[in-house]
Amino acid sequence: MSDTVKYLLDEQHLPKTWYNLAADLPEPPPPVLHPGTGQPVGPDDLAPLFPMALIGQEVSTDREIEIPEPIREVYRQWRPSPLYRARRLEKALDTPARIFYKYEGVSPAGSHKPNTSVAQAFYNKEEGVSRLTTETGAGQWGSSLAYAGALFGLEVEVYMVKVSYNQKPYRRALMETYGAQCYASPSDRTESGKAILAQDPDSPGSLGIAISEAVELAAQRDDTKYSLGSVLNHVLLHQTVIGTEAIEQMAMADTYPDIVIGCAGGGSNFAGLAFPFLGRKLRGGEDVRIIAAEPSACPSLTRGTFAYDFGDTGHLTPLVKMYTLGSSFVPPGFHAGGLRYHGMSGMVSHIKELGLIEAQAHHQTPCFDAATQFARTEGIVPAPESSHAIRSVFDEAEACKRDGTAKTILFNLSGHGHFDMAAYTDYFAGNLEDRDYDEGALQAALAALPQVAAE
Amino acid sequence: MSDTVKYLLDEQHLPKTWYNLAADLPEPPPPVLHPGTGQPVGPDDLAPLFPMALIGQEVSTDREIEIPEPIREVYRQWRPSPLYRARRLEKALDTPARIFYKYEGVSPAGSHKPNTSVAQAFYNKEEGVSRLTTETGAGQWGSSLAYAGALFGLEVEVYMVKVSYNQKPYRRALMETYGAQCYASPSDRTESGKAILAQDPDSPGSLGIAISEAVELAAQRDDTKYSLGSVLNHVLLHQTVIGTEAIEQMAMADTYPDIVIGCAGGGSNFAGLAFPFLGRKLRGGEDVRIIAAEPSACPSLTRGTFAYDFGDTGHLTPLVKMYTLGSSFVPPGFHAGGLRYHGMSGMVSHIKELGLIEAQAHHQTPCFDAATQFARTEGIVPAPESSHAIRSVFDEAEACKRDGTAKTILFNLSGHGHFDMAAYTDYFAGNLEDRDYDEGALQAALAALPQVAAE
Repeated sequence: MSDTVKYLLDEQHLPKTWYNLAADLPEPPPPVLHPGTGQPVGPDDLAPLFPMALIGQEVSTDREIEIPEPIREVYRQWRPSPLYRARRLEKALDTPARIFYKYEGVSPAGSHKPNTSVAQAFYNKEEGVSRLTTETGAGQWGSSLAYAGALFGLEVEVYMVKVSYNQKPYRRALMETYGAQCYASPSDRTESGKAILAQDPDSPGSLGIAISEAVELAAQRDDTKYSLGSVLNHVLLHQTVIGTEAIEQMAMADTYPDIVIGCAGGGSNFAGLAFPFLGRKLRGGEDVRIIAAEPSACPSLTRGTFAYDFGDTGHLTPLVKMYTLGSSFVPPGFHAGGLRYHGMSGMVSHIKELGLIEAQAHHQTPCFDAATQFARTEGIVPAPESSHAIRSVFDEAEACKRDGTAKTILFNLSGHGHFDMAAYTDYFAGNLEDRDYDEGALQAALAALPQVAAE
Repeated sequence: MSDTVKYLLDEQHLPKTWYNLAADLPEPPPPVLHPGTGQPVGPDDLAPLFPMALIGQEVSTDREIEIPEPIREVYRQWRPSPLYRARRLEKALDTPARIFYKYEGVSPAGSHKPNTSVAQAFYNKEEGVSRLTTETGAGQWGSSLAYAGALFGLEVEVYMVKVSYNQKPYRRALMETYGAQCYASPSDRTESGKAILAQDPDSPGSLGIAISEAVELAAQRDDTKYSLGSVLNHVLLHQTVIGTEAIEQMAMADTYPDIVIGCAGGGSNFAGLAFPFLGRKLRGGEDVRIIAAEPSACPSLTRGTFAYDFGDTGHLTPLVKMYTLGSSFVPPGFHAGGLRYHGMSGMVSHIKELGLIEAQAHHQTPCFDAATQFARTEGIVPAPESSHAIRSVFDEAEACKRDGTAKTILFNLSGHGHFDMAAYTDYFAGNLEDRDYDEGALQAALAALPQVAAE
């Protein structure tokens, strides 16, 4: 029996289509609303921010959406990504569970994010856009869009949450190596940023604030559009190559997962792995438990409210019905910067509300306990975001040991931690804080949720 | 015509043997000498430092040496590694040259080094060793041995050249994540380190000094052996999986390289790619130009003397005939820490002396110019060491453009630069110094070369 087992698809198994969960839902998600009129938004409302091709994908109910060949060309550099069985980890945990992971850190930018950044850059370029603005938390998304911008000849301007900007100088260096401009958010380059700085000059920033800055700038210029790294339907759609490949790879391993796990901030890597499995289940296929793992300090799925809210702090975006902590909620600084978002993808929120998925919240220290043991057995150092998924895997594997059941667990190792080593240094030095969110701040943020007539 | 072209071998093409250049050399390299007796060293002289299996490989003249299955099991996680055609780079350079690269950054530790660290950990474990000491420059080697130690249950103690230890805190964090101990060298933990600190408390360290510290500690304890990341025949041997795979992959691309290029510090990634191609040539096969790319600040092959010298600064190692700048030579601090070695592998030196390979030296700035353009076209951010190979590739591709010749160039992208982003930050800020070595220091170091009767 081999210790390392890799399931590698050859290039002819690179997916030709993205999978759209909207085609298989028992009921459609609530509409996205215009904050002024309270009416569902149409393509024209979104046109200042996104190219028409992406707006079309955002509202499509087609099950399969063709991946244009120039995008597949770029995907081929690292896709199909490997799927591994973690036999050394199984032994270390002494669990009867069988643990598999899909590894997305093989992309040039080191995470799953290029699956959508490449697609977004392609469609923007096709429609004559020359410049993209975006936000980034830990920097996985910013560096991935910077990478895609370099390939397609687009200027990229990234607003990076200030606490991460200061924690992760090497992420910034990576974006600059790809030729992008990177600014700490809140910045004084936008009205949104200036408003926050006026209230709190020491604001650590948040994804919600950074989104406001990027959206504001994109809306001002015809040659500029906005690019989002998670949350929106078209972003989640592009990530489904992960799950589509994983289904084939699990078949190569002659098995099918009982449990599928992904970490969730905005929801994109979680959805990328889980949606194709959920779609099979909804079409009458194999049953599967699906778990979203999130941080206790920013627990939108486990402690948020399912309500219409803005996607950003500056209230420039449409209203989406989602699990939210309130768009004015600023989570404490912690190391999984990609999970510091006040809300959750509308689609992921919808399936949570329908009872199709579960959610678990974890503190930092148990996540890094698991990530370190993972590194010492499987060799790959996980991103702090991915460590949340690994914590859930450990918990489920330990439950299998207690119960004597041999479940098959599949999780998404969404990225490596090479640019997050300061987090590991803090962990080894005992400097991690296992903070919860501030309950008063949460209640204030929830009290400030917008009133929406449609609800 | 596709933009990204990846040549991926499936697992059944994972090499079953390492290739030993010693079998095909027109004349054997000069013997390694005992510094006390001036006589060739035997296995007993090396036994305190290395397990017998590795000593056997060090002196073997068998052409093929079988790779034990437990090592192949670990290799399978990332091997066979991909070989790419750099079409986007070719277009950007507007060159008729066809550029291919073998990418070794896909290993868990991010470079070619695990090819030998895994093998060394395996053989040491087999012979009952429980603890390994080693040196590291930029940290590629130290983190690779830490990784292998974690897999095989060996303690690992790493002496990291002080200038790199301070420049690259995340490399240290990586070693600690794998469970290794990492110390700045020169340290006060060894007599060798103390002697250097007594002379120069601010010594930036060097690979030669760090080797002395690690060797000294290994020689003191029966449960402890020493592990070297380059230079020795058995280390170069383990790296030949790179070239063996590349030959098959170039055949998949229906071509064969006119020019093979690798960066060279101690010589291991260079040899790993080049030796299997050189072996074919020596056995009457295809002709090929082979180029070693080294730093102008530590130019052993282009400015050193071919002479017997110590492998370390503290003069604890046997004497090897090699291109050397003198074992007391301490190169200036620069960002490619893995190339800051005073000498060169005896085997690589021997084939340079035989005229079988060429060498080119580069300053830092033109290397980072090339590495940045590579990142913006091919997406992968190269390690500073590898950037030297890329500089040579650019120079050869530009020569092809001038001459209108369509040469096929293959180089080893030995690792990624994720842990070296401070170097890119310095580059973008205009803070790189293109220092040459100090000529007086070189002359003094060469004057201090040991007198060897055999010469």
